[in-house]
Amino acid sequence: TTISQVAATMVDKGNYRHFMQKEIFEQPTVVAQALGRYLDPNAGTVCLPETPFDLANIPRITLIACGTSYYAAEVARYWIEQLARIPVDVDIASEFRYREPVYTEGGLAIFISQSGETADTLAALRHAKAAGQHIAALVNMPGSTMAREADVVLPIHAGPEIGVASTKAFTCQLAVLASLAVKLASAKGEINSNEEAGYVKELNHIPALMAEVLHHDEALQGIARSISTARDILFVGRGIHYPIAMEGALKLKEISYIHAEGYAAGELKHGPIALIDEHVPVIGIAPEDSLFDKTLSNLQEIMARQGKVVMFSDSETKQEGMFAQLKMPSAGFLSSAILYAIPVQLLAYYAAVEKGTDVDQPRNLAKSVTVE
Amino acid sequence: TTISQVAATMVDKGNYRHFMQKEIFEQPTVVAQALGRYLDPNAGTVCLPETPFDLANIPRITLIACGTSYYAAEVARYWIEQLARIPVDVDIASEFRYREPVYTEGGLAIFISQSGETADTLAALRHAKAAGQHIAALVNMPGSTMAREADVVLPIHAGPEIGVASTKAFTCQLAVLASLAVKLASAKGEINSNEEAGYVKELNHIPALMAEVLHHDEALQGIARSISTARDILFVGRGIHYPIAMEGALKLKEISYIHAEGYAAGELKHGPIALIDEHVPVIGIAPEDSLFDKTLSNLQEIMARQGKVVMFSDSETKQEGMFAQLKMPSAGFLSSAILYAIPVQLLAYYAAVEKGTDVDQPRNLAKSVTVE
Repeated sequence: TTISQVAATMVDKGNYRHFMQKEIFEQPTVVAQALGRYLDPNAGTVCLPETPFDLANIPRITLIACGTSYYAAEVARYWIEQLARIPVDVDIASEFRYREPVYTEGGLAIFISQSGETADTLAALRHAKAAGQHIAALVNMPGSTMAREADVVLPIHAGPEIGVASTKAFTCQLAVLASLAVKLASAKGEINSNEEAGYVKELNHIPALMAEVLHHDEALQGIARSISTARDILFVGRGIHYPIAMEGALKLKEISYIHAEGYAAGELKHGPIALIDEHVPVIGIAPEDSLFDKTLSNLQEIMARQGKVVMFSDSETKQEGMFAQLKMPSAGFLSSAILYAIPVQLLAYYAAVEKGTDVDQPRNLAKSVTVE
Repeated sequence: TTISQVAATMVDKGNYRHFMQKEIFEQPTVVAQALGRYLDPNAGTVCLPETPFDLANIPRITLIACGTSYYAAEVARYWIEQLARIPVDVDIASEFRYREPVYTEGGLAIFISQSGETADTLAALRHAKAAGQHIAALVNMPGSTMAREADVVLPIHAGPEIGVASTKAFTCQLAVLASLAVKLASAKGEINSNEEAGYVKELNHIPALMAEVLHHDEALQGIARSISTARDILFVGRGIHYPIAMEGALKLKEISYIHAEGYAAGELKHGPIALIDEHVPVIGIAPEDSLFDKTLSNLQEIMARQGKVVMFSDSETKQEGMFAQLKMPSAGFLSSAILYAIPVQLLAYYAAVEKGTDVDQPRNLAKSVTVE
């Protein structure tokens, strides 16, 4: 919390009511800055810091983090596995080292933490380092302990984040992880230089799309008002958007104290759908991709049980019986999860404002968790 | 549901008020029967069905399931990784095949389903089979589709389970998975025959310990009564007991419609602790193992924020300020998670009875989920 307090005196809120709101709206700018450090748009290539190991020869990657950073890791798994075809394990830092993981020789372990000081993540980093894994740290604080102890540091360039609930650090983490996935795919020869250039172009276009999504500010304020009286809310998604559903639920929990829970849409029928009645709104993260029909069918089952459904989707089709639909821009494989992070942040923010909670300093929470 | 309906006409509730209650109390018997098929107590060895592949040469195991069976998979990961030192990946069936997993050649994929018909799990089985993985099915229905399509079937011998919320199938799945972990460890030479005999002895003792835990019936009824008015409840645990916390939350959701959520205790500080006030009880699964002090410290933080804490533990120490403590028997590495499954089942059962819900046929749920 010390870092956060110091920064708070140096950073002002400008025209925003809260730091969190300011940080949400800063995202197109800081993501553009972060991408600027990792992409060469003219060459159409991703440029990483030098690594003391060969990116083409990594047999397996382990991603370790806590809280919001953990959901960034879950998203990155999809990118790395699908583009680079390197198998990826993801684990919660506080659980990882206690399960006595079996490491793959020559594997790369990547630790994600805004502060670079998160106690459990740092302990996991030391565990993996002692086991001889290559170590990367993805941090916002380049002078942090994790950055010092890693073999390679991937700074996320988000600038000081004051709100306890992470927003811009999350999307900057995702931007850097997406760049890393492209670089790994290219190093392994899974994509050629034309494909790499295509992905670089897609990444470069993300800030513009983020700005477009932020125009939904008022619509999200309206939706937030109508769900802010709920005590319980479910967020559902599939595939790469499942971690975004988890992150949306975490955001809402943290600042509005509404008990939100994220679920893989396909798991609803295995239990949680029993919770559904007219008092439990469900937020569906449902871009019109190959999984859209399945997620839509899950949302329809919820509506059949009187659940109030809000759907975030690029689908133009108006769904009968839905409480609200938010029209998102259509986006590619590397952009989509980053874009859908924004409406869940705004929803949580406005729900908290509606409830009158202390948005930037929610009860019981600290910015940087330096104890286990 | 057809299987369940047929079975319901052939099975009666005896002196029990609900099938679920009967099935909870049957557990020492059915787990003993299941273990009887897998253990040779005289020889001190685990006996598996013949496999068309060499158990000593499995480079990696993938465990796939939905709902309660998924939590059995999460527990098994600890056993297999720690005893056999084979790396294990665990995934939700509805998510698994859509993330285009990178399979390890010669790997074993194990699919867990009570019915053997779960649509997503079956589809994942076919995906792994097409990719050339060795396939095992851990099912309660030996004539099921999954059993027919697998290379090896590991029946769980739980007998017909009528209650929609799974109880005895879960503990029988765990008993078989624990036996499998020992067999893999022995086949790989990670444990010697004395150690194998020791684990077989521990496994054989589980039914007696389960019977002992069931004596806490009345105490759990009392605790359930006092939490049944809560709208939101958290379950927390660490390590191998984290999936038991998840399963406890799922059970309570399914039959009492209380919004319960399971969390890794170390993640509380990264968000969910903001939810805590005097209206949100927390159930801590906290055996006195190497993680006990950390979990206890998390529970104390909850109490400091007025949270009502119920702790299930073999610790004799009375903790000041705790709402209730349930004294569990001390148990070893293979028994502990199986034993702690029982109080979370009874807690859910009595909370549902107190609320007057339809325990055996909870709203919106079917016994066997044969659509995606």
